[in-house]
Amino acid sequence: METISENRSFGGTQGVYKHASSATGTDMTFGLFMPAEAADGPVPVLWYLSGLTCTHANAMEKAGAQSWAAEQGIAVIFPDTSPRGEGVPDDEAYDLGQGAGFYVDASEAPWSKHFKMWSYIAEDLPSVVAENFALDMDRQAITGHSMGGHGALTFAMALPGRFRSVSAFAPICHPTKSDWGRKQFAAYWGDEANWGPHDATLLMQGGGFDGPMLIDTGTDDQFFDLLGTHHLAAAMAEAKQEGQIRLQKGYDHSYYFVSTFMEDHIAFHAEALYA
Amino acid sequence: METISENRSFGGTQGVYKHASSATGTDMTFGLFMPAEAADGPVPVLWYLSGLTCTHANAMEKAGAQSWAAEQGIAVIFPDTSPRGEGVPDDEAYDLGQGAGFYVDASEAPWSKHFKMWSYIAEDLPSVVAENFALDMDRQAITGHSMGGHGALTFAMALPGRFRSVSAFAPICHPTKSDWGRKQFAAYWGDEANWGPHDATLLMQGGGFDGPMLIDTGTDDQFFDLLGTHHLAAAMAEAKQEGQIRLQKGYDHSYYFVSTFMEDHIAFHAEALYA
Repeated sequence: METISENRSFGGTQGVYKHASSATGTDMTFGLFMPAEAADGPVPVLWYLSGLTCTHANAMEKAGAQSWAAEQGIAVIFPDTSPRGEGVPDDEAYDLGQGAGFYVDASEAPWSKHFKMWSYIAEDLPSVVAENFALDMDRQAITGHSMGGHGALTFAMALPGRFRSVSAFAPICHPTKSDWGRKQFAAYWGDEANWGPHDATLLMQGGGFDGPMLIDTGTDDQFFDLLGTHHLAAAMAEAKQEGQIRLQKGYDHSYYFVSTFMEDHIAFHAEALYA
Repeated sequence: METISENRSFGGTQGVYKHASSATGTDMTFGLFMPAEAADGPVPVLWYLSGLTCTHANAMEKAGAQSWAAEQGIAVIFPDTSPRGEGVPDDEAYDLGQGAGFYVDASEAPWSKHFKMWSYIAEDLPSVVAENFALDMDRQAITGHSMGGHGALTFAMALPGRFRSVSAFAPICHPTKSDWGRKQFAAYWGDEANWGPHDATLLMQGGGFDGPMLIDTGTDDQFFDLLGTHHLAAAMAEAKQEGQIRLQKGYDHSYYFVSTFMEDHIAFHAEALYA
């Protein structure tokens, strides 16, 4: 693992690191905020999965998470959203290929060689950070924005016992019924019969999440129709899922929306992580 | 004035606007955060002047000011750092020309036609925002980062009665004795005999600021020698200037440093603005 940069931030350290990923077969870059408390021993971890077009840097720079994570003594991991670099395939569209890994393991050419973001987030990166930093991997929570909200919800439900709490900002809730989902799943997995259970609404219908869930979506989200919030809301109610979906009046899909509610989300996760 | 974008943020609105500037003779873009309280009447104003290479956007996106400005009911203006666009001269160096206006009015070719950032911030932009937004122009404060800290300090001292409080993050404190200053003043004004009193240390030696002053600079600032903090510290002490210079251990010159202390700075200005 190589250190790209480390900056003092809110009494802790905002680092950027690079490592050779066994999952993607490429170098991968991630951001990690470590609060001051890490000097005294392992701290709880919040994963933040980013949305389409983002790298590790966008949320790290714009979401305002460090302030509240420092207050709560929680580390925050900001992974990249896809493999990148020489030999990694891409597409002209913003929503396929690099920057659009969708947190799945691709089986179809040309994507199958490197696009293994499910394995990367579920297995590879946890090993790397657990080995290199003072993190309490028994106390993990996960959140994300848009495509990353889809990621957070699906990891939380598909890996029972891993995360104590899950939240999401404007998540893609039902990708198998949305143009943000069908296009990518078809490219990465081919025929619909092969699509895995990487759909928050389907996972909710199959049992839901064993812990609290918090979802915020803006009423002026410019991608509202692509998110399918009503599908997940109905599924949560039917499953009697502990949690809430909040529709935030006047907010859109931007980091101005994410940063506004970041304090709430980190306080929500802190309650579960310190329970 | 044209609206470029408006995003809901912390209960208020983060807008970006464009207007034809009489000072620079170009279109100029600025960011303006208006807190929810502006719906009920004029709110106090904090000016945030950015550093070298920045546009209006950098601090607006990365400094985390909206959270605390919303809490205090204060508007924040994020001006650009220079004129831009077709016909505006530039230099290959990052620290001269576009993105490096240094908050002065140039007298030398090729800069003199458009590089009038002193007049723009002191006269032109205040008229534009006072006319178009619910701002209480009798309650203004000013801050800035690096070159923008130099700007904040010099505007505050050269325009007595305009600002109730001034603060700065890692400001250039003594530009007439620094490579961040001498190079630009020579280009914009020619011979040193023509340099105006645009130097915070010289202004402090000439009387200082009639109000409280707060300055934060990191001990690990990679540009520490260019800032000349000790010159201003000595001048403040000699002038018995109300205020403080804080050296923050381990912090560098980045927005991670700025955002860490933004809460303190906005609380400091709120105390003066609501006194």
